[in-house]
Amino acid sequence: MSGSTFGLLFRVTNFGESHGPAIGCVIDGCPPGLELSEADIQPDLDRRRPGTSRHVTQRNEPDAVEILSGVYEGKTTGTPICLLIRNTDQRSKDYGNILDTFRPGHADYTYWRRYGLRDPRGGGRSSARLTAPMVAAGAVAKKWLQQRHGTTFAGWMTQLGDVAIPFEDEAQIPVNPFFAPAGETKVAELEAYMDALRRSGDSVGARLKVVARGVPVGLGEPLFDKLDADIAYAMMGINAVKGVEIGDGFGVVTQRGSEHGDEMLPTGFASNHAGGVLGGLSTGQDLEVSIAIKPTSSIRIPKASVNRASEPTSVETFGRHDPCVGIRATPIAEAMLALVVMDHVLRWRAQCADVVLPVPPLAGQIAPQA
Amino acid sequence: MSGSTFGLLFRVTNFGESHGPAIGCVIDGCPPGLELSEADIQPDLDRRRPGTSRHVTQRNEPDAVEILSGVYEGKTTGTPICLLIRNTDQRSKDYGNILDTFRPGHADYTYWRRYGLRDPRGGGRSSARLTAPMVAAGAVAKKWLQQRHGTTFAGWMTQLGDVAIPFEDEAQIPVNPFFAPAGETKVAELEAYMDALRRSGDSVGARLKVVARGVPVGLGEPLFDKLDADIAYAMMGINAVKGVEIGDGFGVVTQRGSEHGDEMLPTGFASNHAGGVLGGLSTGQDLEVSIAIKPTSSIRIPKASVNRASEPTSVETFGRHDPCVGIRATPIAEAMLALVVMDHVLRWRAQCADVVLPVPPLAGQIAPQA
Amino acid sequence: MSGSTFGLLFRVTNFGESHGPAIGCVIDGCPPGLELSEADIQPDLDRRRPGTSRHVTQRNEPDAVEILSGVYEGKTTGTPICLLIRNTDQRSKDYGNILDTFRPGHADYTYWRRYGLRDPRGGGRSSARLTAPMVAAGAVAKKWLQQRHGTTFAGWMTQLGDVAIPFEDEAQIPVNPFFAPAGETKVAELEAYMDALRRSGDSVGARLKVVARGVPVGLGEPLFDKLDADIAYAMMGINAVKGVEIGDGFGVVTQRGSEHGDEMLPTGFASNHAGGVLGGLSTGQDLEVSIAIKPTSSIRIPKASVNRASEPTSVETFGRHDPCVGIRATPIAEAMLALVVMDHVLRWRAQCADVVLPVPPLAGQIAPQA
Amino acid sequence: MSGSTFGLLFRVTNFGESHGPAIGCVIDGCPPGLELSEADIQPDLDRRRPGTSRHVTQRNEPDAVEILSGVYEGKTTGTPICLLIRNTDQRSKDYGNILDTFRPGHADYTYWRRYGLRDPRGGGRSSARLTAPMVAAGAVAKKWLQQRHGTTFAGWMTQLGDVAIPFEDEAQIPVNPFFAPAGETKVAELEAYMDALRRSGDSVGARLKVVARGVPVGLGEPLFDKLDADIAYAMMGINAVKGVEIGDGFGVVTQRGSEHGDEMLPTGFASNHAGGVLGGLSTGQDLEVSIAIKPTSSIRIPKASVNRASEPTSVETFGRHDPCVGIRATPIAEAMLALVVMDHVLRWRAQCADVVLPVPPLAGQIAPQA
Repeated sequence: MSGSTFGLLFRVTNFGESHGPAIGCVIDGCPPGLELSEADIQPDLDRRRPGTSRHVTQRNEPDAVEILSGVYEGKTTGTPICLLIRNTDQRSKDYGNILDTFRPGHADYTYWRRYGLRDPRGGGRSSARLTAPMVAAGAVAKKWLQQRHGTTFAGWMTQLGDVAIPFEDEAQIPVNPFFAPAGETKVAELEAYMDALRRSGDSVGARLKVVARGVPVGLGEPLFDKLDADIAYAMMGINAVKGVEIGDGFGVVTQRGSEHGDEMLPTGFASNHAGGVLGGLSTGQDLEVSIAIKPTSSIRIPKASVNRASEPTSVETFGRHDPCVGIRATPIAEAMLALVVMDHVLRWRAQCADVVLPVPPLAGQIAPQA
Repeated sequence: MSGSTFGLLFRVTNFGESHGPAIGCVIDGCPPGLELSEADIQPDLDRRRPGTSRHVTQRNEPDAVEILSGVYEGKTTGTPICLLIRNTDQRSKDYGNILDTFRPGHADYTYWRRYGLRDPRGGGRSSARLTAPMVAAGAVAKKWLQQRHGTTFAGWMTQLGDVAIPFEDEAQIPVNPFFAPAGETKVAELEAYMDALRRSGDSVGARLKVVARGVPVGLGEPLFDKLDADIAYAMMGINAVKGVEIGDGFGVVTQRGSEHGDEMLPTGFASNHAGGVLGGLSTGQDLEVSIAIKPTSSIRIPKASVNRASEPTSVETFGRHDPCVGIRATPIAEAMLALVVMDHVLRWRAQCADVVLPVPPLAGQIAPQA
Repeated sequence: MSGSTFGLLFRVTNFGESHGPAIGCVIDGCPPGLELSEADIQPDLDRRRPGTSRHVTQRNEPDAVEILSGVYEGKTTGTPICLLIRNTDQRSKDYGNILDTFRPGHADYTYWRRYGLRDPRGGGRSSARLTAPMVAAGAVAKKWLQQRHGTTFAGWMTQLGDVAIPFEDEAQIPVNPFFAPAGETKVAELEAYMDALRRSGDSVGARLKVVARGVPVGLGEPLFDKLDADIAYAMMGINAVKGVEIGDGFGVVTQRGSEHGDEMLPTGFASNHAGGVLGGLSTGQDLEVSIAIKPTSSIRIPKASVNRASEPTSVETFGRHDPCVGIRATPIAEAMLALVVMDHVLRWRAQCADVVLPVPPLAGQIAPQA
Repeated sequence: MSGSTFGLLFRVTNFGESHGPAIGCVIDGCPPGLELSEADIQPDLDRRRPGTSRHVTQRNEPDAVEILSGVYEGKTTGTPICLLIRNTDQRSKDYGNILDTFRPGHADYTYWRRYGLRDPRGGGRSSARLTAPMVAAGAVAKKWLQQRHGTTFAGWMTQLGDVAIPFEDEAQIPVNPFFAPAGETKVAELEAYMDALRRSGDSVGARLKVVARGVPVGLGEPLFDKLDADIAYAMMGINAVKGVEIGDGFGVVTQRGSEHGDEMLPTGFASNHAGGVLGGLSTGQDLEVSIAIKPTSSIRIPKASVNRASEPTSVETFGRHDPCVGIRATPIAEAMLALVVMDHVLRWRAQCADVVLPVPPLAGQIAPQA
């Protein structure tokens, strides 16, 4: 298989290319009885979709989702849910040059060497556009988790290029185009930073944080499908991600054990250096994940490359590209985190539904239930 | 399933607990005809095994591996290879106290809440001892990859707590107890640092780098089983790992696209910011991975905790523990990287064995072959 | 997951319900470079589709397939191929009564107990209509296998109710509406038999045979994913199938070993009692499979049943139903067999692509090649 | 992978060869808290083991099982259970001739062509000896299912070669060496039949029936992992099985729909032609499965064959072989059925644990519970 299915029990199979007729996914394993319509999914797609501010690509895609199966009279039936998103803004143009030349930092060369041929239209299968179906699938998982366990998800930008973004106010996240938890002053700084960047024809990286709250205790599988291992897999699978941290992440390198180990009190954990995972299993605290996103490879500044005959050439990319792909990545990272948690809730139920303990979890924690 | 199988086509199923009768693994899917004996596996186990210097746990385990199946007259037959390692140094002691109390930073609490019961002897299933079978399995993958494609693996420590370790000389790695690519002066500094740490009763984190060289071009699966996503999953699944980076990792946050995108020349890539992966597929350059390992949770300094009745208590851990688990993690990280590459070589063969291109890979690269 | 994905390496994920907006599948893992268009798929769909003779359901569905992804400029790219079939003849009617009552022999009761709710329109997910996407996926596998290895597939009816159908002439199969390898006299008998059956309001079972020719030697995985085990799984998964035989099947019960074991000669096997599989691996002979298909459960003759309140009721079914679902099952069984062989060719390549033997296979056999 | 793992959530990974140091399996995903010791497993192994009567192979293997992991203080911990069976009666002998010649009806030729080499000692991996670990794993599943849902398993022989065995008395099954549900007269007939067969140097086939009782309603996954499809896969994977039937099996070919469809009454189903499965989901009735087992291929009567150079030769097999492998297959088929049901109970829990229906199942049925 070519790696297009995510999850073991809440399985999402993704299909499509950036400029083909349609993209979409099939969700297999959704519990029956969940009220579901397109209106539950569209808001998250709208948070991710292009063209919403001048700081992202101006491609104009409504990304309207259609439920093709798995829902009857407004409820999931337990059978596969196919979600279809038609591509509508595939501008026709000549891809001959792109087909022959490998853009630095892109998947052009690796796809060609692997498959012997590739769909060059908008990056084909390697386009970040393929995250849209995951956002749609994540919306289904989010709704179920919220209803069943009260679990919620949030994400925000913590750094845009050289600009660190302090966590001032979560309520600001949906108000500005950067998913920044900060007020007007910081947002103005980000706007100016991006405007200058765009003028320079260059791109920049970003750092995001994504959290899950109200996660049941004990999710995850030792040894390999640890909750944090599956999260790392999910995050590193997002286009342009080059680093993943759980809890204190690389900060642990210089920590002492006396500092790092989160003490436990009858009122709950005293800290969360671990980021909500111990031994690969959720502690019931917030899952805290950070990711690093590389600068967009499509820039107007020329770079050296080769063509299919291995001859030297130069590449500069014009068109509708995000100068910082990290900006639109927040809903994607949330969705992937939700899909991981969802899958592990179902896995927990399969194996541990009978487990009954004499005392409830620590204060503020949720016990998973069958 | 409880997450004990790693890989899709080169599948390693791990079993055992730290102080049970034995640990081991079953490798399913190894190509037939590979010359294999215990002597191919033991050296890597010896690199990981405890008791080799005063800076690691003094548990004395020979970790002698026995091949129980899958090899006939010195060659793999294509059927499952069971590797068994008997536990020999399980000191009997009273685990009653440990069973009742949750050690901060350990998996005690999460295992208990998930399973309702747990094996407290040496951490049971959550012990880093369970990485030994993976090192053994990795040795099999390494041998096949070396013979078939010339692929090799190496790892070293880049930082131990506050002490950064410059890359001076790869030949020094096997010479000192830290897997440090540095000479006597730096090693003396590390020795002194560890001695002081041990006296303090505390522990510390570390940062490692692991690389694969001679990786065939085009390995990995878009969309989810990207090579880097599978690497992140493999690394984050190693005990105590809290962060994973590919290539420049979190360094990309402040990079510009004009700086990050690796230019291509007829003589090969001009740089390797990407760490050997573009679009989830190997570029044929070195795979470069960094991981952050948290400080050991078992320390002699008391920390607040609770017992199974959620009553407050205090925990301090005496016994044979690594003050820096990162020290012995290098062969583990190498093995996990080898297992990922091995699996993807087989996956490549399945789907793309027919691909023939008119030009060879860029200079210095290897084309996978069926 | 709810069991909607077939295959390990050539993975087909099926979605849809009989009367929803659309049905379809996603093929993941198809080798790149295969020339493919709707015209390669439609003929097999047309062989399966309803309304082609008076002996099958009169539902009028063109079953026109649309390729949504995975093909660029007429060739497969190695990425997922989504095949969509819009449902066009979903007659609106009141399903209230069907929703409340469980039809004997149908999945109504079991779906309701499992999921707590069900889509009653035309059987929803349990409809044999969901075999159409498998026929489409099978057509892709058939084309690749034919081009790459010369493997071909054929199927025919060997018994329709009480009427045994001798194998007279394979060329007759596509000529008559029964997939019968027999001439005019036998076909006339079958026509008369079906006409009488239809008048009686009853239905009847059937027996089919399906074969693969030119199968490479050595396909299949010992121990569990034996080629014959996967065939049995594939066939028993077709709606209404109640029995599967490989080679002599149940005939082996009274055979002696001296009779059953197929002797080997330098010119090839002397017989094929085994049906082309020994030890779970293909022998290179024809794969020979027989299946038993139960009589359609939707009949006009009243039967006792219960409703959702467990109260007694009676059910008789009017409408457009196949009086013998076995008639249209031949292309389905061929497709499932092709999918099994395809998956195992890819699995063989992954593990055994390096195997080189000093002598070629027995006369008339094909060696798999990487 | 080479097909050595069975099940999705209750995963059994099998390893070993007939004459290697050991055989065994790793069970991953067993729910925690099940009381388990070797004494729970040994009885089923003893039912399968060789040397218990003159009608089976005289190989003398105690088949003593050792639990290497996954059990702490007599209870399963939810982590992998490794079961090890040492081989003790591997008579050393010269396998040179066997290595060079392909025995008709055996896997010799197919293994050689697939892997390029093979372990000839006692059939190596293709030996029916590898069913012993499955019987052991099945014993674990049986115990859990019995305790949790009251589900039980039974099997018996229905035909031995030409001798049909009527179902007279289930209590007789463990009393005679044939697993025959019949009294002294029939057993005497079977004894005489087998004695004559053995003298002739030939072997014969058999037909078995295996049932599960007290199966929760609604187990199974539409579309592909139907309960009956998974049963067919499990049964056809047993050595020498050539046919599988569910319920009326091939008897459905001549049945009418008016006869086949099982009517439903408030007191339960009126019949069980379906064998306990409708639409791939369990009805709550007994699961009824029949299998056909081919005659042993190892016979004293010479048969034509070829050697590795494709030259003609002749093969006759002396040694300790079962003249009817069907005799010892009953506990194997029971175990495989138990493993299928176990896996599907866990899968049901994952997806449908929340389903609550207003009315209980039909009389005599069991509702699955989380």
